[in-house]
Amino acid sequence: MNEQKGILTVISGFSGAGKGTVLKRLLTKYDNYALSISATTRAPREGEENGREYFFKTREEFEKMIAKDELIEYAMYVNNYYGTPKAYVQEQLSQGKDVILEIEVQGALKIKERFPDALLIFITPPSAGELKRRLTDRGTEAPEVVEERMRTAARESGFMEAYDYIILNERDRLEECVDKVHGVISAEHARSTRSQAFIEHMKEDLKGE
Amino acid sequence: MNEQKGILTVISGFSGAGKGTVLKRLLTKYDNYALSISATTRAPREGEENGREYFFKTREEFEKMIAKDELIEYAMYVNNYYGTPKAYVQEQLSQGKDVILEIEVQGALKIKERFPDALLIFITPPSAGELKRRLTDRGTEAPEVVEERMRTAARESGFMEAYDYIILNERDRLEECVDKVHGVISAEHARSTRSQAFIEHMKEDLKGE
Repeated sequence: MNEQKGILTVISGFSGAGKGTVLKRLLTKYDNYALSISATTRAPREGEENGREYFFKTREEFEKMIAKDELIEYAMYVNNYYGTPKAYVQEQLSQGKDVILEIEVQGALKIKERFPDALLIFITPPSAGELKRRLTDRGTEAPEVVEERMRTAARESGFMEAYDYIILNERDRLEECVDKVHGVISAEHARSTRSQAFIEHMKEDLKGE
Repeated sequence: MNEQKGILTVISGFSGAGKGTVLKRLLTKYDNYALSISATTRAPREGEENGREYFFKTREEFEKMIAKDELIEYAMYVNNYYGTPKAYVQEQLSQGKDVILEIEVQGALKIKERFPDALLIFITPPSAGELKRRLTDRGTEAPEVVEERMRTAARESGFMEAYDYIILNERDRLEECVDKVHGVISAEHARSTRSQAFIEHMKEDLKGE
């Protein structure tokens, strides 16, 4: 219970839900988290650093990682591989860090299947109208892109039940959302299913008295 | 999600774990809780008030409550009935209050069976030695009473897995324990299984956009 392993936490949410901002704040506000860093075969962009934004790999290196089962999950987008290296995640977990994985719905469900102990959190605005407003207010997306994002959100909403927790990210209430995410992960550490070692110890200890 | 019903929370723990102190502090520190008041046929003690410590009932009244299914659970100890009146609990829950029920292990399991939505929290000292120390330090119990309590604790420890959360109450760390109990109940409100209404609303809302 006290020397518990960290919790593998998967965070998803609609594009425009504000996940990125929430996670950035979570990681600066609390020190028990480590953000999982993905590996990718896409070329680094201006300002990106190997081991910070991504682990940049050649296609050959990446396929070797797949073959050696060194990835928790991977997928291909626009002819590039993206994946989550297992070693880094396991190292952080065993040091007691709660590892945060920001990942889309399909990937999240794959992770839950493979790691039933993973904690799945879904971040959402309080309404579809608010989501649309945020996507529109960015001012960077063409109307048809906003429409496409809204359709994707409608599709993704069908998977919300598969998540353990649903957390609202309301307008101008970032800290509240960040603290809720933190609260949910903290509480999860006290779950009896995660405290088997302590329960066994306590049973033995009481027998001995 | 926002106008959610309260959560029926059952709290158990070994005699000497400090449950009473934790609950008293929880109820003064946070205002979203209501403590369930038991009904009993035992006579009021000096200073006890009807509707505060207990609802005092005659045996006839109590058996009428049983017959009318007006109790969440009941049991008999030393020839007196003790039980949890349903009406008060449901009224508080529908007002959004999280209702706390302090109850022993057998009763807690009965409640979980009948109300699968109930949240079960087990409060425990960090070790058997610490439990014994607390029971002994009270200075009010004869050694054989302490021994009997320790045997009861050993028996009860077999049911810890049935609880949803295990929360440690460490020496001189009352506030930490109180805040953990509060954190666990707060987090539970964001459970997707408790947010079905919001999820359905969000799905419909996104379809409409």
